[in-house]
Amino acid sequence: MRVAVLGTGLIGTSVALALRERGAHVWLSDQDPEAARLAVNLGAGEPLPDSALRGHGAQADVAVIAVPPAAVATTLAAAQAQGSTGLARCYTDVASVKQLPVAQARARGCDMTSYVPGHPLAGREKHGPAAARADLFLGRTWALCPAAETSEQAIAAVTALVRECGAVPMRTDAAAHDRWVALVSHAPHLVAAAMAARLEAAPPEALDLAGQGLRDVTRIAAGDTGLWTQILSANAEPVSEVLAAVAADLAEAARMLTDGDPKSVATLLDHGQAGVARIPGKHGGEPREFTAVQVVIPDEPGELARLFDAAGAAGVNIEDVRIEHSPGLPVGVAELSVRPGEAGTLLDALEAGGWPVRR
Amino acid sequence: MRVAVLGTGLIGTSVALALRERGAHVWLSDQDPEAARLAVNLGAGEPLPDSALRGHGAQADVAVIAVPPAAVATTLAAAQAQGSTGLARCYTDVASVKQLPVAQARARGCDMTSYVPGHPLAGREKHGPAAARADLFLGRTWALCPAAETSEQAIAAVTALVRECGAVPMRTDAAAHDRWVALVSHAPHLVAAAMAARLEAAPPEALDLAGQGLRDVTRIAAGDTGLWTQILSANAEPVSEVLAAVAADLAEAARMLTDGDPKSVATLLDHGQAGVARIPGKHGGEPREFTAVQVVIPDEPGELARLFDAAGAAGVNIEDVRIEHSPGLPVGVAELSVRPGEAGTLLDALEAGGWPVRR
Repeated sequence: MRVAVLGTGLIGTSVALALRERGAHVWLSDQDPEAARLAVNLGAGEPLPDSALRGHGAQADVAVIAVPPAAVATTLAAAQAQGSTGLARCYTDVASVKQLPVAQARARGCDMTSYVPGHPLAGREKHGPAAARADLFLGRTWALCPAAETSEQAIAAVTALVRECGAVPMRTDAAAHDRWVALVSHAPHLVAAAMAARLEAAPPEALDLAGQGLRDVTRIAAGDTGLWTQILSANAEPVSEVLAAVAADLAEAARMLTDGDPKSVATLLDHGQAGVARIPGKHGGEPREFTAVQVVIPDEPGELARLFDAAGAAGVNIEDVRIEHSPGLPVGVAELSVRPGEAGTLLDALEAGGWPVRR
Repeated sequence: MRVAVLGTGLIGTSVALALRERGAHVWLSDQDPEAARLAVNLGAGEPLPDSALRGHGAQADVAVIAVPPAAVATTLAAAQAQGSTGLARCYTDVASVKQLPVAQARARGCDMTSYVPGHPLAGREKHGPAAARADLFLGRTWALCPAAETSEQAIAAVTALVRECGAVPMRTDAAAHDRWVALVSHAPHLVAAAMAARLEAAPPEALDLAGQGLRDVTRIAAGDTGLWTQILSANAEPVSEVLAAVAADLAEAARMLTDGDPKSVATLLDHGQAGVARIPGKHGGEPREFTAVQVVIPDEPGELARLFDAAGAAGVNIEDVRIEHSPGLPVGVAELSVRPGEAGTLLDALEAGGWPVRR
């Protein structure tokens, strides 16, 4: 596979690294020459020559346009206009919104038959090529939203690229995609930010009372403001609808609390429980219940290894680990998630290894 | 130390288990005899006899009242009225709000000199004695909010109990405590619930696009509705204030998005970033920056052990682990957090062990 990656930020460079590991030939370009050079130095591919692909009938199989949402259409138009045949046989993008780039591409007169709008559901709080990872898309959903005109050949080529990156392609349309990510990604980002914003002027003593719950609720609010402002603006209507509903529920809860009427607060909590229960588990698909086993361990090198050795020797696969440290104390608590049927075996193994366990 | 635990739910039973491990004598009671019996069977202590402590001048050093907020004052009054001297020399409670039980205890004519209102900042999504853990309070902040009348002896005794549980006592007053937990615990709970509630009627395809961000934002919304309704109602004013501010920010963001004015959205995102940055790190005190090292591992027993062995052998202490699984793929990604100065050593060790690493 011969792939041109246009835009070597976190996502573009990660796509390039993933494809290189699978033996693809990758050309890289970015409007910031420093970013492109860094991606090349990371082993993500070779620089896209100014003219080498032009006029010789030589084309990339796919061009991946990994630029911010509002820049997709101009980048696509320029790539399709290169040489006599265009830079690539087909094109895809990775923007977190899909209706905006599709509408802008159509308005610019881009060839829509070769364009497969896409969105990998993967990211990090960090950005830029240095944060890129070849494994960023492993097991992640990658939405593909072909337009009515998009050819089946283009869809097949981009679907193959998505699979090469280790992701799971999911075909849908741009309008549905934008409504869905408004609900599961864009609105939650602003909700986390609005809660975190209340902490800015809080007394330090209040923050000393912060627990894991507050950390989890606000974590994603640490993301890049510029990119998120563009994403939210480009998906304004569906995001706005979700936010307005959340704001109305919270304002109503605030009023009911003041009025001493806890019934509607209980109702909101019940709806929240029902909503959480619908989020698929880490393994995707149906939620899977794991049993958590807690072990107190010294906060020292080698201690976790001893623990995982004992689990591995017992044939128990640890599905997840959470470590809680203890400020001022030389121990931490490791919470090991295992399949319910394996918890007993793990407890036996830990007990035999000298760890105090509680059944 | 001789301690009576009144109420053997998650917190009461965990206090009992923690104190037993430190050699304390613990008596247990609960208005639900089944809950008390389960706690006794878990090794948390012996049943509180109906009369053994009365009329012989025999007293517990401390009685820990671990009942819901609205039941604290009646339980305290009954305990203080036992025998000729009362059940214990001093009393504390563990309710998540402090002004309500203090006001109710004073209104009932309780002896305030022997009562030290308290609140351990620890909990789980599960409840009941079976979910109890002796290590629940390790390294956690435990707020103590003595009233003006509370004696220094009572404060000293309860402070000692808190330390025996492995927690870090923090002395403050009830009004400040309630304002602070409204901000860092109670309001975030309802914000998570309001976001999660939007998912209840979402199409399954939308939930297929859910990532770790949504899971983190909504996780705490899975808590117990009855207990949380009581907590939120008992801290109505400060919680209501925070919620009203969050609701106003979100409603404003929704309007600005619809009006095509992204500036105030960017401002809210900036305030959110600043707020997140103020939350202390896992080790408490100043936030500590860790470097994350990602490794792709087969999703099989023993693989994590091999990884932690390599880290331990290199003398690197892994401060946190996060495992991302890949639906449909036989591999996962382990993200290991280490002190920045140790990342290079860890990468060397992993590379030597045959893991593909990216620097």
